[in-house]
Amino acid sequence: MRPSGRDLSEMRPVSIEVGVTKHAEGSCMIKMGDTHVLCTATIEDRVPPFIKGSGLGWVTAEYGMLPRSTTSRMRREAAAGKQGGRTVEIQRLIGRSLRAGVDRVALGERQITVDCDVIQADGGTRCASITGGWVALRLAVNKLMKTGAVISDPLVSPVGAVSCGIYAGQPVLDLDYPEDSEAGVDGNFVMLGDGRLIEVQMSAEGATFTRPQMDELMALAEKGVAELAEMQKAVTVA
Amino acid sequence: MRPSGRDLSEMRPVSIEVGVTKHAEGSCMIKMGDTHVLCTATIEDRVPPFIKGSGLGWVTAEYGMLPRSTTSRMRREAAAGKQGGRTVEIQRLIGRSLRAGVDRVALGERQITVDCDVIQADGGTRCASITGGWVALRLAVNKLMKTGAVISDPLVSPVGAVSCGIYAGQPVLDLDYPEDSEAGVDGNFVMLGDGRLIEVQMSAEGATFTRPQMDELMALAEKGVAELAEMQKAVTVA
Amino acid sequence: MRPSGRDLSEMRPVSIEVGVTKHAEGSCMIKMGDTHVLCTATIEDRVPPFIKGSGLGWVTAEYGMLPRSTTSRMRREAAAGKQGGRTVEIQRLIGRSLRAGVDRVALGERQITVDCDVIQADGGTRCASITGGWVALRLAVNKLMKTGAVISDPLVSPVGAVSCGIYAGQPVLDLDYPEDSEAGVDGNFVMLGDGRLIEVQMSAEGATFTRPQMDELMALAEKGVAELAEMQKAVTVA
Amino acid sequence: MRPSGRDLSEMRPVSIEVGVTKHAEGSCMIKMGDTHVLCTATIEDRVPPFIKGSGLGWVTAEYGMLPRSTTSRMRREAAAGKQGGRTVEIQRLIGRSLRAGVDRVALGERQITVDCDVIQADGGTRCASITGGWVALRLAVNKLMKTGAVISDPLVSPVGAVSCGIYAGQPVLDLDYPEDSEAGVDGNFVMLGDGRLIEVQMSAEGATFTRPQMDELMALAEKGVAELAEMQKAVTVA
Amino acid sequence: MRPSGRDLSEMRPVSIEVGVTKHAEGSCMIKMGDTHVLCTATIEDRVPPFIKGSGLGWVTAEYGMLPRSTTSRMRREAAAGKQGGRTVEIQRLIGRSLRAGVDRVALGERQITVDCDVIQADGGTRCASITGGWVALRLAVNKLMKTGAVISDPLVSPVGAVSCGIYAGQPVLDLDYPEDSEAGVDGNFVMLGDGRLIEVQMSAEGATFTRPQMDELMALAEKGVAELAEMQKAVTVA
Amino acid sequence: MRPSGRDLSEMRPVSIEVGVTKHAEGSCMIKMGDTHVLCTATIEDRVPPFIKGSGLGWVTAEYGMLPRSTTSRMRREAAAGKQGGRTVEIQRLIGRSLRAGVDRVALGERQITVDCDVIQADGGTRCASITGGWVALRLAVNKLMKTGAVISDPLVSPVGAVSCGIYAGQPVLDLDYPEDSEAGVDGNFVMLGDGRLIEVQMSAEGATFTRPQMDELMALAEKGVAELAEMQKAVTVA
Repeated sequence: MRPSGRDLSEMRPVSIEVGVTKHAEGSCMIKMGDTHVLCTATIEDRVPPFIKGSGLGWVTAEYGMLPRSTTSRMRREAAAGKQGGRTVEIQRLIGRSLRAGVDRVALGERQITVDCDVIQADGGTRCASITGGWVALRLAVNKLMKTGAVISDPLVSPVGAVSCGIYAGQPVLDLDYPEDSEAGVDGNFVMLGDGRLIEVQMSAEGATFTRPQMDELMALAEKGVAELAEMQKAVTVA
Repeated sequence: MRPSGRDLSEMRPVSIEVGVTKHAEGSCMIKMGDTHVLCTATIEDRVPPFIKGSGLGWVTAEYGMLPRSTTSRMRREAAAGKQGGRTVEIQRLIGRSLRAGVDRVALGERQITVDCDVIQADGGTRCASITGGWVALRLAVNKLMKTGAVISDPLVSPVGAVSCGIYAGQPVLDLDYPEDSEAGVDGNFVMLGDGRLIEVQMSAEGATFTRPQMDELMALAEKGVAELAEMQKAVTVA
Repeated sequence: MRPSGRDLSEMRPVSIEVGVTKHAEGSCMIKMGDTHVLCTATIEDRVPPFIKGSGLGWVTAEYGMLPRSTTSRMRREAAAGKQGGRTVEIQRLIGRSLRAGVDRVALGERQITVDCDVIQADGGTRCASITGGWVALRLAVNKLMKTGAVISDPLVSPVGAVSCGIYAGQPVLDLDYPEDSEAGVDGNFVMLGDGRLIEVQMSAEGATFTRPQMDELMALAEKGVAELAEMQKAVTVA
Repeated sequence: MRPSGRDLSEMRPVSIEVGVTKHAEGSCMIKMGDTHVLCTATIEDRVPPFIKGSGLGWVTAEYGMLPRSTTSRMRREAAAGKQGGRTVEIQRLIGRSLRAGVDRVALGERQITVDCDVIQADGGTRCASITGGWVALRLAVNKLMKTGAVISDPLVSPVGAVSCGIYAGQPVLDLDYPEDSEAGVDGNFVMLGDGRLIEVQMSAEGATFTRPQMDELMALAEKGVAELAEMQKAVTVA
Repeated sequence: MRPSGRDLSEMRPVSIEVGVTKHAEGSCMIKMGDTHVLCTATIEDRVPPFIKGSGLGWVTAEYGMLPRSTTSRMRREAAAGKQGGRTVEIQRLIGRSLRAGVDRVALGERQITVDCDVIQADGGTRCASITGGWVALRLAVNKLMKTGAVISDPLVSPVGAVSCGIYAGQPVLDLDYPEDSEAGVDGNFVMLGDGRLIEVQMSAEGATFTRPQMDELMALAEKGVAELAEMQKAVTVA
Repeated sequence: MRPSGRDLSEMRPVSIEVGVTKHAEGSCMIKMGDTHVLCTATIEDRVPPFIKGSGLGWVTAEYGMLPRSTTSRMRREAAAGKQGGRTVEIQRLIGRSLRAGVDRVALGERQITVDCDVIQADGGTRCASITGGWVALRLAVNKLMKTGAVISDPLVSPVGAVSCGIYAGQPVLDLDYPEDSEAGVDGNFVMLGDGRLIEVQMSAEGATFTRPQMDELMALAEKGVAELAEMQKAVTVA
């Protein structure tokens, strides 16, 4: 019934390759089906002005899509002279989500910037960015711990995200682009590996949904994030 | 226990004054406690390029805060040369939310722009904007129906929104600014008057939440939006 | 003969309501007929770089129009990405005008920003902004004097402004929009309450004017500003 | 008494060299003392959207200062990414002033853009721009008339401008930079050659002025503009 | 003697993997040592306004670097709000270079946009972009020819580019970053596969060079581009 | 055979008038035929952040064209809100070229900004800017040496530039606009007065060139720059 032939609660094949760039303190290429996102983590000693001197760390994120990551070419945001509203929304979400899994005291007064650049898009890029972004972050923090710059682990649990939606009247897990463009209701669920919630964004375009439907979607999401958490752990064992 | 002395499930006093500007096709000043938002609806015959010739209508929204609507003065976005990420996020939410309650075929090929300008802020400005924005929209559509430009009512049910969050460990309805700035978990719930969901945005900053907590918040939100829907209907009886 | 039926030397009904927002150090809503401007004054301890350490104070102003303050909707300047030429011109005029009535030594090294936001426009918004802006400034300075932060009153006399022009061949006071859009010659006169001049801006679009005409307009302006000064004093008695 | 040794009612030496660039339809270099402005007029067949099809012409102006036209180097506006408020104000003034002397029906549906670029600044650049700009405009219109594109002369009388101010307590004509930077009160007067007024902009920074003072300044301005009109006519005899 | 141990006339290991993204009409990942650039070609039916209706085709290019493609993180240009001068220079060079190898009549009135995005940088990104960009272009054109949209091959010969410079007093081929940052003299040579020159950009920062040196560098470049041309042909055999 | 009737190796008449503005530390108007560029040099005590405290000096350049320096009016870059790609490319080239002839230790920790503004364009504006820019720089440095601020001369040899190209199949020196717009191959050569090379930029648009052709062009360039160097020396004798 799904265009891809997947079961309703079946995620696309996921792979996470770590250490894909030589410069970044942490990096991975996450592939959720045909959605490919390159995630890098950069450690800097400076922090934003509003926490200078507080002893607290900061994690922030930026998001971008290569112009031809999509079916038809998108205008390059650097050429357009500004980041679009969708980009801004997504990178704020990624930053908030990752910070929710960080003990900022333990991190100490430094900033880690997670860049998520979509190489190829087929739906669910923001969720792949959060999941892969956490891996890059984890690898960068591992480096800080190896050198002793950070003593107590500031990352308690993986942060993962998955999209769910109602496609052809059925709740489905991990929408690809053909599903996403049809679904009147869909959402993104960000959780810790143990199921605690960080962010829920359900949205209906030209439709509505009910609480029972929402409960079903959330159950799917829990399943998906749990699976992702296993992979995140596997590829980041120090 | 709440700074304002309100019960956990008690909204702030709400008032909606309609017809507050002489130029707009629909307008109201909504006050949720000390949060005051001026909402206007403008009807235009043109539509965005992507639906030109489709026969479908469009509803969009813009949001702004007066520089001294807040405790300390914010920089004017027009002077800064761009709308901030928060502004963009909010106005996209308002537009999506209002569109969810619109039959775009019935509206016909025209655009209604809802402007929500915060005169005074004390928490919950995006929810007040959605609730008041719908009232302005309703009044503008009433005009279209009175002149016969629109025959079948494109607005089936009021769209309302309210924030909920966990304050001092307790789920509370309609956070004001002192609560909002303390709450680690809060969210915005947009619904039709009958409780059908349009948008759910739960977010945790430096915290997490559980599904039972989410359920409690959603119950509070249903109560709040139902109350708002009554007021919306009362002030927009044609 | 005037569209509104007013006498040639008759201003529109004017009202000034003070204390209209809870956050600003000084605020008022000034209404000159159907032109409504919200004016707020914000006190900050910092001053612009070019007077840092001089002991002198600074007063500056910003001006904006809500998108639907006008007959047809204007594009929001924050969305357009810059303030238009007219906006820049007007806010520079407001700032210069208010500073002309300020003893900057007595004010001390602090900055007061006066924001003038047009809620509804029907001609004469810049004059209403100056007149209302002075009220907001006066109220903010009153606060500084009450706390002892400022000892000697830096505001010696109200600053008021009114427009005059030649409509249908006759010099008239306080043009409303229907007059303004017809008048080939019009101008703005900013004065102290005692008639001393601060700024005169006479302008002809597709027309010219003579010195006797200019004298007549100036006499009208003196009458108008004197009336405004009475109201400004009445509403700002400490 | 004046830094330059001039009489109170004496202008600086003025020269206007025409035909200084080979590409423009009209051009001149105007020198008012050490203030040198290059003015060019460009004829184009297109007009702004708001008069398309009306049969009316349009005259507009742009103004710029070379970065080192001033005592210390100014930042290049193209590099800064926008025209400053002062620039915008000035070019709007130049455009309005020139249009006041144009019969837009006689001009026909075409646009003339007058560019005024300050090569060297020593006070009074906006007045020199208007006076020189009219010369460039006149020369361009002469060309249109020679080819028969325009039949009836759309320029009835020269448009000229001069600054006046109160320097060391005395009304003086044509302020240079040392005077301008000291004068608390100064203004710009734009007139037709026969003394009819187009624009009056009197402004006091940290001071006020009286009507008798204003009368004195206006008399000086009339003298100055009459002298400029003679020169404008002399250099543009077809 | 070279940091990498390479001979003076030895290029880094080069690989070109084609078909790396599923959406683009042509794509490749080119690796010149540790410099990795993703190149995609997009075919569109529209052309720039200046050739509309001419029957001629257009090839243009855009260039970007991922923020952490470099040793320390660069600011994202989309966030900075504009493309830097270096970016603009490079993408203009890529576009000019590719067009030099295109028969624009044979291409027909359509546009091909080549996007070159640097995934990892280690010197020579602009040369890799040209070389890889041609491969993407070739693949896209192959598609047009396969469908019959283009009959006569518009690409006569591969366009390739390589950098050369004077490092530690010796002319060397294909500088990597450690060499590039030391070399006072370096340049980029763009050629057709048969050695005909398209673009030569030699530049000295704080140094000069002689004609004999230039001749030596050019001979190295010819060798390098010939090797690249073999690889370009091998991977794009239709 | 050349439109101007010049010999293949004949430059246009060149004149360099020095001291043309009263504010700049060094200035000249360079005319290469109908190409006229005003060059000014500004000395400032501050240097860019990346060399602060290094003791080294900096030379940078900015380039602009007046809107009607060209056959048809160009949009003013300040009004467009940014410098175009061509402008950025050219001003970077001017800055690099001038720096190549500067001993930055001898200059000491100060910055000299060379502004090159094209008053009238007829081809070769970037070369005229470099040649004239060096004259302005030389004059400014002379001032520093006269006051003793700089002891050892940081400018060893003039920096000059000239364009060459293949016009109607023949290599020609110093292309004017009619030649430039026809030439498929042209380039700019920047050299010290003694022929040592600083920058070579050969470019083919829709064409290619050979090494023998390049050699011919370079010989022409050497001749041209040598002639320019004589003139540069003559007008800047301290």
